[in-house]
Amino acid sequence: MNLILVEAGELKGQGFSDSVGRVRLTDRRADHIRDVHKAQVDDLLKVGLLNGSIGQGRVVSIDQEAVELALDFSSGHLAPEPLPVVLVLALPRPKMLRRILQASASMGVKEIWIIHSYRVDKSYWSSPLLDEESMLLQLKLGLEQAGDTLMPTIHLRKRFKPFVEDELPSLVQGRQAWVAHPYGSDATPTATDQPTLIAVGPEGGFIPYEVDKLKEAGLQPLTLGRRILRVETAIPVLLARLFPVS
Amino acid sequence: MNLILVEAGELKGQGFSDSVGRVRLTDRRADHIRDVHKAQVDDLLKVGLLNGSIGQGRVVSIDQEAVELALDFSSGHLAPEPLPVVLVLALPRPKMLRRILQASASMGVKEIWIIHSYRVDKSYWSSPLLDEESMLLQLKLGLEQAGDTLMPTIHLRKRFKPFVEDELPSLVQGRQAWVAHPYGSDATPTATDQPTLIAVGPEGGFIPYEVDKLKEAGLQPLTLGRRILRVETAIPVLLARLFPVS
Repeated sequence: MNLILVEAGELKGQGFSDSVGRVRLTDRRADHIRDVHKAQVDDLLKVGLLNGSIGQGRVVSIDQEAVELALDFSSGHLAPEPLPVVLVLALPRPKMLRRILQASASMGVKEIWIIHSYRVDKSYWSSPLLDEESMLLQLKLGLEQAGDTLMPTIHLRKRFKPFVEDELPSLVQGRQAWVAHPYGSDATPTATDQPTLIAVGPEGGFIPYEVDKLKEAGLQPLTLGRRILRVETAIPVLLARLFPVS
Repeated sequence: MNLILVEAGELKGQGFSDSVGRVRLTDRRADHIRDVHKAQVDDLLKVGLLNGSIGQGRVVSIDQEAVELALDFSSGHLAPEPLPVVLVLALPRPKMLRRILQASASMGVKEIWIIHSYRVDKSYWSSPLLDEESMLLQLKLGLEQAGDTLMPTIHLRKRFKPFVEDELPSLVQGRQAWVAHPYGSDATPTATDQPTLIAVGPEGGFIPYEVDKLKEAGLQPLTLGRRILRVETAIPVLLARLFPVS
């Protein structure tokens, strides 16, 4: 946790304005400040306001029950630049989804569409890890890791065809759009700072019918080379190659 | 498993030459061929000879006990090109190490030095995941994922200073050498196909003393930008930026 993420609703205290306030933490953030940061009274910690600016929190009190911070956002530091990318992702195995959400959030992805695909095990859709609260936690962990405050949005689409036919074409508008496809002699990713959409299939890839539907929606196949990478490796690799300087 | 990795010592059968043979699998590979590939007699599977070439295996028999393959390496396909990189890695949390080894092997890293660092919890060094057999399994999983056959080598060094003073300088010889350092305004990685060495610190980074020692050994600090990534994300990102076309 390289940044303690707090929400506006958690701030309190007399004299609270846009730039100062207090927060009393009793959850995993308090545990982390105590056990990992090993913070003491008057220590300064990097704090971010969810979807807002980045500032400092001075430890006012710390004990087994709670950590209280006096916050100061007056320096006006902003979150790092988002990546100009929409990530369309066939639902991965839930444990892997957790890591992918964290890693994607930490790299600056702000819009994620999780979709069904033929090779996605249907049981994955009933995993508790798909609960809004559970996914939100993974995204927060990613933001806290990266020192970011801007919460990504996630959309779930349990049916491939309606998504690809009715929603995807308008997402593709104004963006370069790719489908990562492990086989064949397609283009390799090149550096860009243009608005981009990338679709990543499940382990084993999208089936040919799905690749055709994605092409119809305006996506071009793109390969990462001869090596077939796991989805959780392929995503950081794709993002790093498409956006090398961010 | 995009390739079934077999060892020369497993091959048997009359008429075995360099290019053909049989193998009888009873371990996780048999389970995978049965349960994931759902293979049947006469199906052809991609097979690789450990540290050798890539060929095909025809399913000769398959039941709950074993899967027998008739192998043919006569096409002479070679493994994908290795990355020209030496990875020096502060020992991560063992569960994360497992994923890092898999991902690194899948991306083509062939030489890994795992070292101690001030911020590495000493207890990590007694994890059973550091047993040779356990690490070998993770590397095999990475190779099988990527369709590679060339086994990486791993070196463990439990003491930072002797490694950095006595061994690292000769590893740096003839290579560009970097230490990934999350803070400060250092160089960002640029594409290369030159022999390269990258050192990656633990979560929280190398301490200043260690960075100084690494600089003395010839490594230059390199940053991935404002976002602080977890080690397991930073490694694919670094490799993808340094070696974009492989």
